[in-house]
This record gives sequence, C-alpha cells and structure tokens, in this order.
Amino acid sequence: MVATTQHRDRTGCPVACALDIIGDHWTLLIIRNLMFLGLHEYKDMLAAEERISTNILTRRLRSLEREGLVAAAPHPESRRRKLYYLTPMGKDLIPVLVAISRWSNRHMGELLDIPPDIKVLIETDPDRFIAMTLDRLDAWEAANLPSRRT
Amino acid sequence: MVATTQHRDRTGCPVACALDIIGDHWTLLIIRNLMFLGLHEYKDMLAAEERISTNILTRRLRSLEREGLVAAAPHPESRRRKLYYLTPMGKDLIPVLVAISRWSNRHMGELLDIPPDIKVLIETDPDRFIAMTLDRLDAWEAANLPSRRT
Repeated sequence: MVATTQHRDRTGCPVACALDIIGDHWTLLIIRNLMFLGLHEYKDMLAAEERISTNILTRRLRSLEREGLVAAAPHPESRRRKLYYLTPMGKDLIPVLVAISRWSNRHMGELLDIPPDIKVLIETDPDRFIAMTLDRLDAWEAANLPSRRT
Repeated sequence: MVATTQHRDRTGCPVACALDIIGDHWTLLIIRNLMFLGLHEYKDMLAAEERISTNILTRRLRSLEREGLVAAAPHPESRRRKLYYLTPMGKDLIPVLVAISRWSNRHMGELLDIPPDIKVLIETDPDRFIAMTLDRLDAWEAANLPSRRT
C-alpha cells in the first residue's frame, strides 16, 4: 500500500507504480467484492469468507477512495450506511482480476469453488465475461445510485 | 503471502486463492524482474531500484520456489551463485503483469518511465508484446540453462 511502500518515489516502472495502489491482497479482495460479489457495504465485506479485520478494511477502503478507485454514496435506506462502488478507474482493473482468475483456474483448479459455466466462460471468452460484468455493474448503479444518473 | 494469509483454507474464490501466492507487491516485483528486466541473480534483484531488503527477497524467492513459480540453477561461472528463472507456471502470469501495466499506463501515465514504443505496443497489441517476451525468455534459457535443453 501507499502508506508502507512508495515505489512511486523511486521508480517509473508501470508494474511497481500500480502495486503501490493495488499490490496488497486485501485491496484486491475489496475490489473483487465490489466487482464480482455484489458486496457494497462495509458489514457485507466484513462478513466475506476471507475474514478481513475491521481496521484493515477501514484503512484499505479509505486508501482506495483517496486514490480514486472507489467512491461512496449514502445508502438509500439509511444515511448512516454507505454504499461503496467502483469508479471508472477501479472498474478498469477488471482485466487484471480476470487474468488472475484465469491463472488460478489453470494452476490451482482443484482448490477452486466457482460455477463451472463461469469457469469455462473466463477461459474461453474472457472479453464476454468482462462485458457481462460491466453490464451488471451498470445495472446496479442505475438501481442504487439514482442521483448519479441524471 | 502464504505464510501470513492462507485464504486457501477458507475460500474457493479464484482471486483469493491466487493472491495467497502472488498477492504481495514484492512477490510480483520479483516476477517482474525475471520476466521483463533480465534480473536473474539475487544480487541484481537486491540492486533493483525499489530496494527490496535481503530478508524479504530471500523469503519471497524461497516461497516462489516452493509454490513452483520460480526455479534455480547453478550459475555457469560459479557454483556458489544461482540463476533464478520462471517455470511455466510462473511465465503464465505474464497476462496478469501486462494487465497491471496497461492499467497504470492509463491511470498513472505521468509517473511512468518506460520506452514509448513499448508503452504503445502494450496498449495496442498486448498479445504481440506477450509473445515477444516469451521468445526473449526462451532465448535466455537456451543460452543460460543448457542442461535443461537436451
């Protein structure tokens, strides 16, 4: 994370600079929550099966908001709750997460637990899987962030 | 890293399982060193501009060898030196690193320091960039790991 490893101060390498922001497994799991799992609230992310701790989740969400990958809106049912969602910069990470998924499908297949049709789609037509995911995010935004859709 | 976060014990998510192995910025920088920068020796990786520490480098290399992404061969000039290289499982991460590079090219462009022709190639024809990289790794192996090429 930026707070602990500022590669950007030392290098212009595109991999190193990106890892300043996303090179942390909890950060990428938060992006996964928002991108694929439909987990848009703090409490739902806390309950995800990897069992992220409250302080890590709070810090990573704040960092992702500061870096411009995640934004938050008030929950329509309660002003005390927030809905987190990916910005265009955050959504642009989808090819990274799909590439990671394809790699683990190939090399860690026996450990994985994903629907067989999704596994096949990611392998055979990743562009279609990406388009379907972005359509789903658009639909979620239209339903949950009406004020952004004027 | 595996030692600190065993998502694999708790989840079958392909992103989470992959991040057990590669979800650490130093791990991905070591893979970058071997994949793109031609840094195949411990001392060369230690001198890379991100300034990895000796204990992190030693631990991450050991973990990557144990997980089957990196292998080591004796250096032709000295049996006390080792040449590290990517296994097929390690090389299969190239789409992940290219996807990360494309994202930072788009969103952190002003910070980056890569040859303009490479930047354009990664954006316009990533498959060709991947093929060129794999050819270069093959040529390096043929020159440096003759015993593996019988």
